[in-house]
Amino acid sequence: MKSKEKLMRKFDEGKHICVGLDTDVNKIPPHLKDRDDALLEFNRIVIENTIDGAAAYKLNLAFYEQYGLEGLELMKKTLALIPDDILTIGDAKRGDIGNTSSMYAKAIFDELNFDAITLHPYMGFDSVEPFLEYQDKLHFVLALTSNKSAADFEKLKLESGKYLYQQVIEKVNDWNSKGNCGIVFGATQLEELKNNIESFGDLVVLLPGIGAQGGSLEDVVTAFSDKNNLNYLINVSRGIIYCDMTLNFGDKVKSVLENYNTIINKLISTNS
Amino acid sequence: MKSKEKLMRKFDEGKHICVGLDTDVNKIPPHLKDRDDALLEFNRIVIENTIDGAAAYKLNLAFYEQYGLEGLELMKKTLALIPDDILTIGDAKRGDIGNTSSMYAKAIFDELNFDAITLHPYMGFDSVEPFLEYQDKLHFVLALTSNKSAADFEKLKLESGKYLYQQVIEKVNDWNSKGNCGIVFGATQLEELKNNIESFGDLVVLLPGIGAQGGSLEDVVTAFSDKNNLNYLINVSRGIIYCDMTLNFGDKVKSVLENYNTIINKLISTNS
Repeated sequence: MKSKEKLMRKFDEGKHICVGLDTDVNKIPPHLKDRDDALLEFNRIVIENTIDGAAAYKLNLAFYEQYGLEGLELMKKTLALIPDDILTIGDAKRGDIGNTSSMYAKAIFDELNFDAITLHPYMGFDSVEPFLEYQDKLHFVLALTSNKSAADFEKLKLESGKYLYQQVIEKVNDWNSKGNCGIVFGATQLEELKNNIESFGDLVVLLPGIGAQGGSLEDVVTAFSDKNNLNYLINVSRGIIYCDMTLNFGDKVKSVLENYNTIINKLISTNS
Repeated sequence: MKSKEKLMRKFDEGKHICVGLDTDVNKIPPHLKDRDDALLEFNRIVIENTIDGAAAYKLNLAFYEQYGLEGLELMKKTLALIPDDILTIGDAKRGDIGNTSSMYAKAIFDELNFDAITLHPYMGFDSVEPFLEYQDKLHFVLALTSNKSAADFEKLKLESGKYLYQQVIEKVNDWNSKGNCGIVFGATQLEELKNNIESFGDLVVLLPGIGAQGGSLEDVVTAFSDKNNLNYLINVSRGIIYCDMTLNFGDKVKSVLENYNTIINKLISTNS
């Protein structure tokens, strides 16, 4: 199944949460820490309890790369635990000259077998094109990110009157001829989100920044509902996977995700 | 020794070439291909023959990541072959929100033990800061890249009248309070290079794009010499490592690098 199709089916089921597997040995429940396979077991329990409610999973590659070879093994074993009908995003934020981007695409899509990736736009089209050639995959290009320093460059005003991130969104729309593009837009950037939703066109929007980073789930869902757009994926990492430190954290993880889904669907039906 | 110091000593010796170990199984000499350790043996021969002439080595992470676990092993074993007094650059082009950038920094500097890294500026200061906290390492931020699509965003004109890449250079100068920053500037962008050298300040400049990508060694060296700036590192990958396909390719690699160094030093002394 095409990556975008996987996601659309979840959207049709009213699922919009992407579970961020930002797995960190310093943050997992203490009772798991002494196990040899502590991180894999943690991921296994999180996945088992979120399969029914998640629209997608996002693995932040940095969290795995910090452990070297073991981290790469962990990432592969984690991906093997995720059912084939749920989208997996390699949050890799790659982007390089053409022949190098081809190698990164090979690493993420052929070697690790992710369904989707996140990309830096800075170097322009030819740095993104080798990824887009993987037509059945989904490619989320950074537009406006959730961090404070997004103001340094992304929010610079261009001579044309547009902001840099708006120019990126316009270009990604141009690059979307195969329907396999998306953008990353920070859930913390509410005013900008409201003012730009209509420029997103058919692009799938991945929104990080809910919870620990300060973005509001309700505000984001309402902003999209107001424009009759259901094409969005809200990432939650710490707010779900580290919600509880007890022996039964799996149950808590499950109910936290269910609660997010209930809130989202109530808001969607109120606004429709 | 601090990374910058390693490099400065090489500059003092008149060495400005960074050997790019973009090792690709499809491009190495045929006689090596059947060996189990073909890529490591290829890197070993290249390193052995360039130790005397190289100012630095750059490993493009994509070329290694495409081979998964084996690629990571290869990268570690390759780094172990490089003498400690020569700078090693992890050409990783990373950049993410703060806590994620910290993990990438850990992966590149603690796990792999590179001396330097390349970074995407798009997300701004807080995406770069966790790297800069590794004070003894060197951090090359992308300014103007060598690829054609650099025009898509990097060369956009801002409301202020500056181009985006110029704003990046200005910011990186601000971020350089610990003297551990550099920039990446494409050797193919000659006019922009000539017009901006004076804005580089104390930043070390890494220049890819010589050879296969069309940049001219002579033009780049002359541009820097004209401004009495010796703070630059010219990357050559394909032009050195794939210069010969015979059993004696190591000798050829050595002489090609020596030839580059001769040209550079002739140009520097002519212009000084």
